[in-house]
Amino acid sequence: MEQHSHPLKNRLYVIIFGTHTPAGRAFDIALLIAILLSLVVVVAQSVPEIQDSHGTALHFFELGFTALFTIEYLVRLYCSPQLTAYARSYYGIVDLLAILPTYIAPFVPGASYMVVIRMLRIMRIFRILRLVGYIQDSNILLRSLLMARRKVFIFFSTVGILVTIFGSLIYVIEGPEHGFTSIPKSIYWAIVTITTVGYGDIVPQTGLGKTIASLTMLLGYSILAVPTGIITAELNNEMKSHRQLVKCPNCSKAGHETEALFCKYCGSELAAPDQRVVPIDNKQDKHSD
Amino acid sequence: MEQHSHPLKNRLYVIIFGTHTPAGRAFDIALLIAILLSLVVVVAQSVPEIQDSHGTALHFFELGFTALFTIEYLVRLYCSPQLTAYARSYYGIVDLLAILPTYIAPFVPGASYMVVIRMLRIMRIFRILRLVGYIQDSNILLRSLLMARRKVFIFFSTVGILVTIFGSLIYVIEGPEHGFTSIPKSIYWAIVTITTVGYGDIVPQTGLGKTIASLTMLLGYSILAVPTGIITAELNNEMKSHRQLVKCPNCSKAGHETEALFCKYCGSELAAPDQRVVPIDNKQDKHSD
Amino acid sequence: MEQHSHPLKNRLYVIIFGTHTPAGRAFDIALLIAILLSLVVVVAQSVPEIQDSHGTALHFFELGFTALFTIEYLVRLYCSPQLTAYARSYYGIVDLLAILPTYIAPFVPGASYMVVIRMLRIMRIFRILRLVGYIQDSNILLRSLLMARRKVFIFFSTVGILVTIFGSLIYVIEGPEHGFTSIPKSIYWAIVTITTVGYGDIVPQTGLGKTIASLTMLLGYSILAVPTGIITAELNNEMKSHRQLVKCPNCSKAGHETEALFCKYCGSELAAPDQRVVPIDNKQDKHSD
Amino acid sequence: MEQHSHPLKNRLYVIIFGTHTPAGRAFDIALLIAILLSLVVVVAQSVPEIQDSHGTALHFFELGFTALFTIEYLVRLYCSPQLTAYARSYYGIVDLLAILPTYIAPFVPGASYMVVIRMLRIMRIFRILRLVGYIQDSNILLRSLLMARRKVFIFFSTVGILVTIFGSLIYVIEGPEHGFTSIPKSIYWAIVTITTVGYGDIVPQTGLGKTIASLTMLLGYSILAVPTGIITAELNNEMKSHRQLVKCPNCSKAGHETEALFCKYCGSELAAPDQRVVPIDNKQDKHSD
Repeated sequence: MEQHSHPLKNRLYVIIFGTHTPAGRAFDIALLIAILLSLVVVVAQSVPEIQDSHGTALHFFELGFTALFTIEYLVRLYCSPQLTAYARSYYGIVDLLAILPTYIAPFVPGASYMVVIRMLRIMRIFRILRLVGYIQDSNILLRSLLMARRKVFIFFSTVGILVTIFGSLIYVIEGPEHGFTSIPKSIYWAIVTITTVGYGDIVPQTGLGKTIASLTMLLGYSILAVPTGIITAELNNEMKSHRQLVKCPNCSKAGHETEALFCKYCGSELAAPDQRVVPIDNKQDKHSD
Repeated sequence: MEQHSHPLKNRLYVIIFGTHTPAGRAFDIALLIAILLSLVVVVAQSVPEIQDSHGTALHFFELGFTALFTIEYLVRLYCSPQLTAYARSYYGIVDLLAILPTYIAPFVPGASYMVVIRMLRIMRIFRILRLVGYIQDSNILLRSLLMARRKVFIFFSTVGILVTIFGSLIYVIEGPEHGFTSIPKSIYWAIVTITTVGYGDIVPQTGLGKTIASLTMLLGYSILAVPTGIITAELNNEMKSHRQLVKCPNCSKAGHETEALFCKYCGSELAAPDQRVVPIDNKQDKHSD
Repeated sequence: MEQHSHPLKNRLYVIIFGTHTPAGRAFDIALLIAILLSLVVVVAQSVPEIQDSHGTALHFFELGFTALFTIEYLVRLYCSPQLTAYARSYYGIVDLLAILPTYIAPFVPGASYMVVIRMLRIMRIFRILRLVGYIQDSNILLRSLLMARRKVFIFFSTVGILVTIFGSLIYVIEGPEHGFTSIPKSIYWAIVTITTVGYGDIVPQTGLGKTIASLTMLLGYSILAVPTGIITAELNNEMKSHRQLVKCPNCSKAGHETEALFCKYCGSELAAPDQRVVPIDNKQDKHSD
Repeated sequence: MEQHSHPLKNRLYVIIFGTHTPAGRAFDIALLIAILLSLVVVVAQSVPEIQDSHGTALHFFELGFTALFTIEYLVRLYCSPQLTAYARSYYGIVDLLAILPTYIAPFVPGASYMVVIRMLRIMRIFRILRLVGYIQDSNILLRSLLMARRKVFIFFSTVGILVTIFGSLIYVIEGPEHGFTSIPKSIYWAIVTITTVGYGDIVPQTGLGKTIASLTMLLGYSILAVPTGIITAELNNEMKSHRQLVKCPNCSKAGHETEALFCKYCGSELAAPDQRVVPIDNKQDKHSD
């Protein structure tokens, strides 16, 4: 509303925050490419051989991307309708944290490590995905996880208790002389074992310890089935309930099967399957970015 | 009933065993925090560095928590309607075992290790979870596991036979010179392999041994699918049959789909979906704690 | 039929092969215990420490069990209606192979190792399971696996091709100097990696090798989902189709839901859910053992 | 059409590309055996011991198979109706790449390694599988994967972001002195950990590093559930929608359950379940090979 009085601000807003105009899409894709390139620079700087041979060039790229992202941040601040809405949003904070390390690095030793925060910026990829028709599948996945969150929490509590008990048990049985020097380290072993990762850096040496380890493995092997079962069941539900969005034009009740021709509540004819409009939730699209 | 004649005993009972009053909930949460803190003390005592620097303080905390849990145990004994009902219940035995090690440690060498039994007390977390609305999800998970117990038993028998056969086979093929010094150790290797843990402490060296190992891995990889399939199928059933709790007000038959408006047996109108009362099983709530 | 003329042979047959009389069940359970004990002896003999201290006692037990199983084998041969039917059945061959090693051990060096064939005898546990009501669950599991066999075969062909391709690729990239001394060894590495076992005895050293390894892992991680999906889908079908066994008393059509009161084909009243007879397949019970 | 004027070309086409005549099937099976044998030769050549003792014989076999496949390639080119259709198809390129290495090996050092491209030829096994009735199951699997491709892509993007973030984090925490010498190497560690492979060649040493590693493992353990859930749900859908192929003879609408006797749209009687013809998609069968 109030944006109409600032033509430039308004136009910048549509390009930077919007996704429905060609310019907005182009900006989002260009930004993602810039983020990925700046990540490549950060990753390349961490490799000693590359740093030795191309260190100066990488440092200039690094400064260039920081300048670019600083300008982007300032423009976002400028064209955001409410200044604080963006500055306090998730992406606003990540965007700020992504440029700060380069500025404070000369003063705070070790600050250059903080540049890994920039990794969080790649989450913007999900915004791009939303543009190219992946929104529906990504929503189904997200909703399944949300529906399952209680069951997953109970599951992780159980795993937490199990690794505490098995970790303590193996600590008492094997003891420090076989590498289980403390209960936290033994719990770490239990997690490595129950998740079937099995690094092999700490392994039981005694017969009793190996029996406990076998029990832990078999338990981990079978409870792995529980989160899978939970997610599958919720995903099934979510994919079924997706049809809830198909509404009858007469009584406006939803929940019709894809193959249904008539409303099962009032008998009116339904729209043909390929002409049914599945509404896209536009509310998510405002200041989330 | 008989508790009415002992106002103090009755009031203590409601606080300590009950979960429906604010005082009862506050007690449960305070107890859980005390249990978690006492576990932190036990875990910290096992770390040599912490034990060296804060050993005395930790020992005092340890004594303090033992005193606290001893008082709690005695009060529970006092206010339990039937003294033996609590003392012989699962939590009654765990509570006693959790305080004993500290008392007998001066007399029995190595008894301090028994303090890990205290780990079992964290299972009380499930009681707290039940308070905050997780009861339904936790019941669905539990019932699925119960329904699947026969299939899981058959599955574990099969895994047991497979690891015995593959363990014996690799023992004959590789022999003691490659680390497979006995059949039990070879069975341990088979479990490590079939569960895809793969520590790497014992690995086959010969070509034939590697072939057998590959077979074991591929087998483990594919039978991992079986418990997942079992749990998923049962979970699906359990989540569906949950609707069995929705009853018709006229003929009181259950099993209506969430979207149903009329009883499918007698045609009476059902309550609106969000007003349907799903009864919570109160029987589980008596002396289980 | 012809057994009626041999009262002793007939009675022995009912005890040894039958499962429906108390004597038959007792025999099966006693036999299973003897098999398990003889396995414990075999396993114990393989442990050097136990062999050193109790070697002679174990050898006598070994001879005793061999004598026992020899008598059992001869009696089975004697009372089997058709002599060759048993001798050529799966269990007939396993039973013979289980006693042979002890007899030929003095003449053929290394024959004592063949005693691990005795492990196959523990499969008789499935016969006992059938007695105690596990038949239905075990049939559902078995039928699911049978229904899925084609999909599982396609899946394993794909895995076979993938490990061949990735194994060859890593062999070319890493080469013998990093432990990948031949294509078969590299395929072994690919199997260890794709099944997420990850022993760590052979690992890629170069950057390109690590990239290929990462691809193999992520691929293995995601195609692990395929057999699980197959088994779950078949298990779901199998559990649903189980209701096919409920038949209408009027039109004798099957496939009614557990909650159905009337036949959905002819409208006749169905038997009450708990009085529905689910027929047990008796054909499996003849000479399979 | 135009093939009728070239009787030999036409006959060769039916044998080499066709699968419906006995000669066509025999050719396909013979070709598969030749491909598998040539792979055995390639694999055997990579084993130093076999190469030392049978090197010359293997080299002759290698030349023989190359000659055979060259003739096959030329005949395919000759009898293909449009010359370029085969030469530019997937199998046309693979077939060419499979014979080239042997020809250029004398001139280009290291070209003999390219012989592993021949591995891609084993994919022809899927063509053989199609012959023996596996087409339907393989189509169901393939379609499920295709339906799930968007969800799988979102899943892999998430995994990609997670391993980047966790890899960078562990690089900052553990640093080069504990083996995490660069971010790419740390990302490799994160992939090894999140997929539960766990080689153990690089492991965290510090307490904080072990905590991050535990988080990575538990995360990997639980998100493993997501692709399984996706594939299972899609497979379920695909197996259900398979019935879409059953058509009503009157109104020719599809989607009837296996047990249905009458069309649910027009009430006409359906064909008996075992006489329903499920059409096989013949379009796939033209120049795909």
